[in-house]
Amino acid sequence: MEQAVDKPKLTVSGIHRVREILDWYKGENPGVLTNLARMLNHGTLGGTGRMVILPVDQGFEHGPARSFAPNPAGYDPHYHFQLAVDAGTNAYAAPLGFLEAGAAEFAGQVPLILKLNNSDSLSKGEPCPAVTASVQDALRLGCSAIGFTIYPGSEERNTMVEELAELAAEAKSVGLAVVVWSYPRGSGVSKEGETAVDVVAYAAQIAAQLGAHLIKVKPPGENIEQDAARKVYEKEQIPVKTLADRVRHVVQSAFNGRRIVIFSGGAAKGTDAVLEEIRAIRDGGGFGSIIGRNSFQRSKAEGVKLLRSVMDIYLGK
Amino acid sequence: MEQAVDKPKLTVSGIHRVREILDWYKGENPGVLTNLARMLNHGTLGGTGRMVILPVDQGFEHGPARSFAPNPAGYDPHYHFQLAVDAGTNAYAAPLGFLEAGAAEFAGQVPLILKLNNSDSLSKGEPCPAVTASVQDALRLGCSAIGFTIYPGSEERNTMVEELAELAAEAKSVGLAVVVWSYPRGSGVSKEGETAVDVVAYAAQIAAQLGAHLIKVKPPGENIEQDAARKVYEKEQIPVKTLADRVRHVVQSAFNGRRIVIFSGGAAKGTDAVLEEIRAIRDGGGFGSIIGRNSFQRSKAEGVKLLRSVMDIYLGK
Amino acid sequence: MEQAVDKPKLTVSGIHRVREILDWYKGENPGVLTNLARMLNHGTLGGTGRMVILPVDQGFEHGPARSFAPNPAGYDPHYHFQLAVDAGTNAYAAPLGFLEAGAAEFAGQVPLILKLNNSDSLSKGEPCPAVTASVQDALRLGCSAIGFTIYPGSEERNTMVEELAELAAEAKSVGLAVVVWSYPRGSGVSKEGETAVDVVAYAAQIAAQLGAHLIKVKPPGENIEQDAARKVYEKEQIPVKTLADRVRHVVQSAFNGRRIVIFSGGAAKGTDAVLEEIRAIRDGGGFGSIIGRNSFQRSKAEGVKLLRSVMDIYLGK
Amino acid sequence: MEQAVDKPKLTVSGIHRVREILDWYKGENPGVLTNLARMLNHGTLGGTGRMVILPVDQGFEHGPARSFAPNPAGYDPHYHFQLAVDAGTNAYAAPLGFLEAGAAEFAGQVPLILKLNNSDSLSKGEPCPAVTASVQDALRLGCSAIGFTIYPGSEERNTMVEELAELAAEAKSVGLAVVVWSYPRGSGVSKEGETAVDVVAYAAQIAAQLGAHLIKVKPPGENIEQDAARKVYEKEQIPVKTLADRVRHVVQSAFNGRRIVIFSGGAAKGTDAVLEEIRAIRDGGGFGSIIGRNSFQRSKAEGVKLLRSVMDIYLGK
Amino acid sequence: MEQAVDKPKLTVSGIHRVREILDWYKGENPGVLTNLARMLNHGTLGGTGRMVILPVDQGFEHGPARSFAPNPAGYDPHYHFQLAVDAGTNAYAAPLGFLEAGAAEFAGQVPLILKLNNSDSLSKGEPCPAVTASVQDALRLGCSAIGFTIYPGSEERNTMVEELAELAAEAKSVGLAVVVWSYPRGSGVSKEGETAVDVVAYAAQIAAQLGAHLIKVKPPGENIEQDAARKVYEKEQIPVKTLADRVRHVVQSAFNGRRIVIFSGGAAKGTDAVLEEIRAIRDGGGFGSIIGRNSFQRSKAEGVKLLRSVMDIYLGK
Repeated sequence: MEQAVDKPKLTVSGIHRVREILDWYKGENPGVLTNLARMLNHGTLGGTGRMVILPVDQGFEHGPARSFAPNPAGYDPHYHFQLAVDAGTNAYAAPLGFLEAGAAEFAGQVPLILKLNNSDSLSKGEPCPAVTASVQDALRLGCSAIGFTIYPGSEERNTMVEELAELAAEAKSVGLAVVVWSYPRGSGVSKEGETAVDVVAYAAQIAAQLGAHLIKVKPPGENIEQDAARKVYEKEQIPVKTLADRVRHVVQSAFNGRRIVIFSGGAAKGTDAVLEEIRAIRDGGGFGSIIGRNSFQRSKAEGVKLLRSVMDIYLGK
Repeated sequence: MEQAVDKPKLTVSGIHRVREILDWYKGENPGVLTNLARMLNHGTLGGTGRMVILPVDQGFEHGPARSFAPNPAGYDPHYHFQLAVDAGTNAYAAPLGFLEAGAAEFAGQVPLILKLNNSDSLSKGEPCPAVTASVQDALRLGCSAIGFTIYPGSEERNTMVEELAELAAEAKSVGLAVVVWSYPRGSGVSKEGETAVDVVAYAAQIAAQLGAHLIKVKPPGENIEQDAARKVYEKEQIPVKTLADRVRHVVQSAFNGRRIVIFSGGAAKGTDAVLEEIRAIRDGGGFGSIIGRNSFQRSKAEGVKLLRSVMDIYLGK
Repeated sequence: MEQAVDKPKLTVSGIHRVREILDWYKGENPGVLTNLARMLNHGTLGGTGRMVILPVDQGFEHGPARSFAPNPAGYDPHYHFQLAVDAGTNAYAAPLGFLEAGAAEFAGQVPLILKLNNSDSLSKGEPCPAVTASVQDALRLGCSAIGFTIYPGSEERNTMVEELAELAAEAKSVGLAVVVWSYPRGSGVSKEGETAVDVVAYAAQIAAQLGAHLIKVKPPGENIEQDAARKVYEKEQIPVKTLADRVRHVVQSAFNGRRIVIFSGGAAKGTDAVLEEIRAIRDGGGFGSIIGRNSFQRSKAEGVKLLRSVMDIYLGK
Repeated sequence: MEQAVDKPKLTVSGIHRVREILDWYKGENPGVLTNLARMLNHGTLGGTGRMVILPVDQGFEHGPARSFAPNPAGYDPHYHFQLAVDAGTNAYAAPLGFLEAGAAEFAGQVPLILKLNNSDSLSKGEPCPAVTASVQDALRLGCSAIGFTIYPGSEERNTMVEELAELAAEAKSVGLAVVVWSYPRGSGVSKEGETAVDVVAYAAQIAAQLGAHLIKVKPPGENIEQDAARKVYEKEQIPVKTLADRVRHVVQSAFNGRRIVIFSGGAAKGTDAVLEEIRAIRDGGGFGSIIGRNSFQRSKAEGVKLLRSVMDIYLGK
Repeated sequence: MEQAVDKPKLTVSGIHRVREILDWYKGENPGVLTNLARMLNHGTLGGTGRMVILPVDQGFEHGPARSFAPNPAGYDPHYHFQLAVDAGTNAYAAPLGFLEAGAAEFAGQVPLILKLNNSDSLSKGEPCPAVTASVQDALRLGCSAIGFTIYPGSEERNTMVEELAELAAEAKSVGLAVVVWSYPRGSGVSKEGETAVDVVAYAAQIAAQLGAHLIKVKPPGENIEQDAARKVYEKEQIPVKTLADRVRHVVQSAFNGRRIVIFSGGAAKGTDAVLEEIRAIRDGGGFGSIIGRNSFQRSKAEGVKLLRSVMDIYLGK
């Protein structure tokens, strides 16, 4: 039996909400707005202004067995395209090779984000990803956006930031949206500091100031990393007790909600833990989630089910 | 009720004063002169040859909470455009993201300066900002000038200076003015030395020699950092007792007043302290002020009131 | 005695009207919007959404004596800058040489439009202007816009149109506005047909379709040039009896009023004739006028007086 | 016996006059101003604001025998350098080959103008010179200016004008001055019309509008070529009876005297005829002369003598 | 009263001497030769083959008060142009900002050398100037040469040398001369070694080998820095007793006198000490002097007087 795999939302209210969001990006060319709209309008959450994105760069970042052995179907690049289609995510993000291996086969079925830089886990030292693909690659693969990772706190931050500045300007000039993974890391921050609420908020601000359209950060913890910041959080009594509080603060830190901020799911964990986190993100006004390992390290059916449960939360169900 | 939001100064005497200043920049192309004139002619101080500029790069430099929590309206990029418009500042300076988020909405309402490099506070080590935007970005955003920070005294000074040399030449070739933040910092100067009168004067000279049209320095203190300089200050009996004396010396150090030098407001402080400092800057022949935290960390009404009080001082009221 | 030479209109209602117009150009980058705003906000009509522009390319187009002998002060390029300033026009448009000869002296006093192509009257044959300057020239001269003439009806039309397509794209990418003089001429149209209502409306449409932000056409006559068009005008009973009717039709033909259309003044004539035409343009919803010979071929005092009378009409006085 | 070969004029009054002239070119970069000053300050007329230039492109334009047989020493490129040095002309202008053949030998002895386009007399048809050298050639040869010929009235005018627009912009960007030979010619004008007063004035205007710093035209005749122009000359009673009258009108037509206009000597003729013409040019306010055949088609001694007689006239002797 | 401000020397014998010098640079393009000739022909020493150059980079190198407080008129960039003009120096050398601030005003009055790299005294560590301007800047400012400093003996020498290699090649390709300040400094030489005769001679050789046209070194002392060198100086009995001896050796070390070598004046000192040093330089066959602090740290009248006394020595008076 044929079954609809996508329930589009090009309703009047959906068009309205997406226009409202696009208005935050006034001044960008219509190409950029169109590609933002493609992602915002696609999939189960299309038209709601919320987004769930499937990212699969772990093969490069952590190695294949650590990434795909729990669900060996994931070794196959087609698997992730199909997962994104079946679950109705707004977009699918991956490095060059994974996209090249399926973009023709799945052309038009899900918006694509080409991750332009990637790190592997074989090297030590100050973290700094390599630029692994180009804006031109994103165009020839039919992508809607480029993705780029920066590590604020790394001694190599200027390298990443300057690469991003150039690639983002180029991407915008050809109508592509810009998605930034802003993950503090390196000798400037402690291990716990990487997810401290002040640091995550700062990371969101930096990405926004660098011209990101869509910002991905980690769910912030209750701890505060920087002494200079702690004084302000205490004096101004910024609420950071609950995850919803902290998400609200991070979204505010990204231009008072004028930039789309989504949150990563982090390490694989139990379904309940995942969903509880999602509810907090939703309650704090987060725009959505980017869920990799928690979706593709389960069986296909379970992965789809989890993603749909996540979407149901964003749909207010 | 209709209310004038700008009191322009294109009077005959104003045109005269601005032409006099532009004559110091003879040899620059008419595009550069036009953009200098746009800033000099705009706002409450338009046509007086004095300038007050609103800079908001603290979100990037210090983090969002430290910058905006005291007045959370400031998380919103539109807030600062409107503050600049309402207070009638000569220009508004910010990093890429903040300008992209409002330049279309506020097109033509206040001259813009795009800060082309920025540092964050998450990293340690010798200070060196990252280049975060380009001259092409400044053009597509409708800016009148590029802004660039150098840290004389840093081991990384040559990197900054060489980036500035290239960007300034490119900016001038397309008719944009060049604003340099010259802030001594790094292993070459002590913490107190950063605002020593010899060092601030030196910083102004360096910026001028690098081709800056408009130079921003910190208000100089009475201390002298360098032994070789101290001998000269003593022998030549250079007056440095009062802030007005020191401002006069700094302005002299920037080509004998042939370059526009303005002074930063520094950390947020009480209104009286701010205004007293402004009076001294005015009395010493400083061309104006660049006031960030002291304006946007208050309520809108109070921020506008403070900026107007500052302007009143420059207007000789 | 100090005298205001400019009565700016950055009132709340003016900002409102200009924003409304800029919204028609949504999707253009903020640089383009800023330069449109600079012209719309400047001078006596600043903030009203109406425009009067001074164009002086007749020295090139018709020769110096024919252009300037009636008022020999006009041989001097500074004269026209000052005329534009004194009369408070929204902008001044001229070829390269005239702008180079005064842009530094008058920097910041009136928005400039660099005419990028020009014809002389010494040659015969199918009309086709030469490209006489570049977008880079416009930037170094501090212009707000490029100007370009096309002659629909000429056998050489494709040359002009293709040059415009390239130059307009380049201009927009660096934040400059695009003004198109759309003057049907050449073997494709009869002499009277050049100002036929169907032809002028068609010329406005072509300019709009080529991406012009601001369109200059001649006041349309009552005659209809094309047989195929005549049938429709008759069948649909398009009102073309009065000049106001015809102006309304031309404005409608330029994207239903979503593009700024202004009308040329044509050959020098008596004041009453000029002002009567302006009233009709205003009544028909025209956005303004571009008045060359009728302003600079009189004495300075009379030229300013005429331009102010024209502006008074647009101000509804 | 040692003999001064140059009587330079860097007197206080000379510096004054040259600064006055350079002020007309305000907005050009200091390199252009420097090269204009180099020519204005050099030679017998240095510092007077008047100029005599030696041009030798006739070998290319008319062929070698027609050019050099009357004084065979002129076949040798060194001859003309030495003639310019001995006579103390402000500059020497020639095509690529002639300059390459002597620029090293005579380095620093006389400012050079590289003619970037040239025609030969072997071809028929609508006149259009070939571009024979580049701005880069002018730099490597140590020139102060580029020279370029346009033929208004030719069907090929757009080709020339567009080449000039590009080359002039490039020359200015590297600090070279731009000298334009503006010689109406081709199917658009009659043979006598080439020197008609309206046409020569028009040619001067066109060159000025194209951004020429220094304009070379032919001495205008009393005839008027264009009917449309004739009406104006008669109505406005523009004096064109004497050559001085007509020179005055041509200088006025070049931005009211804000551009340097010099006049060619034309075909070789008797000394008295030459000098009478020079007196009229001087009386009409012409800036000087460019004298080729009349100087190099005589013996060296006579050529020098003629050039010095010409300079004496400009010196008011 | 009119007063000659320059006594040029384009006499036959002067042309002869300059041609003789230019012959050493045979193979360079005529542009380079022209610019060398411009400097050799200019000012009081024009045509003698001797040179006195005014360099003012101390504001950047030592700070403004240390440089200009002894004669505060020197804070003004115009002062130094006028000093060079009044004293009749062959050229004036300065960093970008100082030249930009006066090159238009003083266009054509004195040949300019743009210093392309500069150090400040605020930083510690191995010496290495920053590149602060470009060859393109030198062209647009109308300069005759680029200037560049190398520090043989610094660990960073390769950075400087490689920058020079690129910039010198580019400068020569556009006809600019290359002036190299060759100042041994850094961890490779002792403090006294910086002016040891073997080291200064070595510095001159390095600059010559790098393609410098004009070499600036410090007056060499009697000491010898390198053991390997000392053996040779002793064995070959190279005379180094008097300054004249040592200057002769240094000039010999720069291609046996086939490169122009001039000597710096060093720290400010008494007039007699300066002049005595100059006599020794002249007697040793040095080509001239580059005198900064000793000229601009006196009153204008005294500075001019000193420079003229220096020139008198070179003129053999």
